[in-house]
Amino acid sequence: MATPIEAVRWSPDGRAVRIIDQRLLPGEYVERDLRTLDEVVEAIQTLAVRGAPAIGICGAMGLVVCATKHESMDADAFRAALAGDALTIREARPTAVNLSWAVDRLMNVARAVDGPPAAVLSALHDEATRVLDEDRAMCRAIGEHGAALLAEGSRVLTHCNAGALATGGIGAALAPVYVAVERGRRIAVFADETRPLLQGSRLTAWELARAGIPVTVLTDNMAASVMRDGSIDLCIVGADRIAANGDVANKIGTYGVAVLAKHHGIPFYVAAPSSTIDLATATGAGIVIEQRPSHEVTRPFGTPTAPDGASVHNPAFDVTPAELVTAIITERGIHRAPYNFAR
Amino acid sequence: MATPIEAVRWSPDGRAVRIIDQRLLPGEYVERDLRTLDEVVEAIQTLAVRGAPAIGICGAMGLVVCATKHESMDADAFRAALAGDALTIREARPTAVNLSWAVDRLMNVARAVDGPPAAVLSALHDEATRVLDEDRAMCRAIGEHGAALLAEGSRVLTHCNAGALATGGIGAALAPVYVAVERGRRIAVFADETRPLLQGSRLTAWELARAGIPVTVLTDNMAASVMRDGSIDLCIVGADRIAANGDVANKIGTYGVAVLAKHHGIPFYVAAPSSTIDLATATGAGIVIEQRPSHEVTRPFGTPTAPDGASVHNPAFDVTPAELVTAIITERGIHRAPYNFAR
Repeated sequence: MATPIEAVRWSPDGRAVRIIDQRLLPGEYVERDLRTLDEVVEAIQTLAVRGAPAIGICGAMGLVVCATKHESMDADAFRAALAGDALTIREARPTAVNLSWAVDRLMNVARAVDGPPAAVLSALHDEATRVLDEDRAMCRAIGEHGAALLAEGSRVLTHCNAGALATGGIGAALAPVYVAVERGRRIAVFADETRPLLQGSRLTAWELARAGIPVTVLTDNMAASVMRDGSIDLCIVGADRIAANGDVANKIGTYGVAVLAKHHGIPFYVAAPSSTIDLATATGAGIVIEQRPSHEVTRPFGTPTAPDGASVHNPAFDVTPAELVTAIITERGIHRAPYNFAR
Repeated sequence: MATPIEAVRWSPDGRAVRIIDQRLLPGEYVERDLRTLDEVVEAIQTLAVRGAPAIGICGAMGLVVCATKHESMDADAFRAALAGDALTIREARPTAVNLSWAVDRLMNVARAVDGPPAAVLSALHDEATRVLDEDRAMCRAIGEHGAALLAEGSRVLTHCNAGALATGGIGAALAPVYVAVERGRRIAVFADETRPLLQGSRLTAWELARAGIPVTVLTDNMAASVMRDGSIDLCIVGADRIAANGDVANKIGTYGVAVLAKHHGIPFYVAAPSSTIDLATATGAGIVIEQRPSHEVTRPFGTPTAPDGASVHNPAFDVTPAELVTAIITERGIHRAPYNFAR
């Protein structure tokens, strides 16, 4: 297997955040080095970098890059400039919890260092690298646990992209696939294209094909027939939020895959870092579903595909009830109902 | 309610086939008059006219239009030219059963007339009009039977387009909706966009919006969540072929809708003319599923959405087993299992 791509990392000189520009995939592979506040914010806002873990890492590393430019200031001015940059990055995508979490984590480190700008910068650089390394380790652990569920020849259906492109490491839903392939197993992946934004065909299929893993793209409405054909052994998807009872919010369409899997007696797994588990949310009923702009549905690639007189439904996520989830894979292991995430 | 559109009809002078050019919908509404063999064949081949009943009608009426041009020939030359045109039209889309059926029906009439070209032409014109009128009556009857299943306020989910655009009349799956609305009931329709070719958003949403019927477009993977929300009372879809045991071949994605409907306790109806029932096919296992070109999935509107290294799955149809079908609505009535279509 080729090494999975790295969505976010330091540039070789350590003075820029190097990302894969996901807006251009699958047509073009372009790495970009983010060296200024504007570049960091723009990359996050325009989804050049996407996926909650990858956004958090990019924000943390991006803050270090920006702060480096203030190194020659006196201590007070440096701290003021750092705080301003942190606020701007934090607000680039206000709903991305990982982004504010990562930026806040760096600012806590900055506050704890009682020294000149150079000392603060050094501590920030170490902490951002730690954010990246921890995410890589978490992906790896999810992959190690999840790989136990994959046999030689397993055929996996996934939805959206919870792969290397969404994290600093080898992904969440795709991590078990990467680890199983690394161990010499032949694994085939079926990727729902995942309308409206097509993260499955654009991103999941791209990163798997690049790693030399066989992948078949299908439109979302074909999942049922491949399950019925006996072409799918298990499903693995990611998660945006997991409630305390095991209900899972993830990309729209995930719930339908779970229902179809149940009907066909196919195991349905969710793979996500344990930070995705929100113990403050008792059940999926407490998760507010964001409605997104209608043009994503009605104007794909700028082409009008629906008449002006039609209404449009475009929820970003749906909630899969815990009873349809076979198990939840985190870096801590494989969790099965009844869930006791708090332990 | 505005009158549903007429996909195929005679031009006012009776010398051309007037169609709505479905390639341009929903962006542009253009009626085209087909006056030559080339125009008839091109309209059928390029899906300017689509839907098995509409194609059959267009072929029958198109043959009359072409034959009219040979009226001044002597009887033998006329019959030879007619036979040549019939063969050309018949082969415009070789797999469309309704097309060969309609053309053969006209040729049988021609053979039965023992007179000059003018007499044959008159008989052909009458027969083509009969093909159109019978289809209209059949749609109407499906609508009358099916409307009994729709209550005031019913919310109907449909997939693909089995509407007026696919027939000479008010459609098959949408006919019950049109009749119920005509009777004063408020009906709301949810239209799956129906990847890869988007007949749901492009055509179903367009014809319903034009008729003033509330329609909401959703991507195929959203059907599960609207069912779970309690937003759907029943599903009605069309059929490409129905086996003797009630298994239904229809546009890819139909089977998934049926599984989801069953999971949510929502009735799932199939509406189609009885000519769709193929008694020679015992079960759905005998129905061969056409695989279509991969670019329909990977290059929507010319934009590459999947990497070159990925395989692609693109079956045109799937088969819904009879046990997931609540009832089949034809012009003869509402059929429920165990099916005895032969009576």
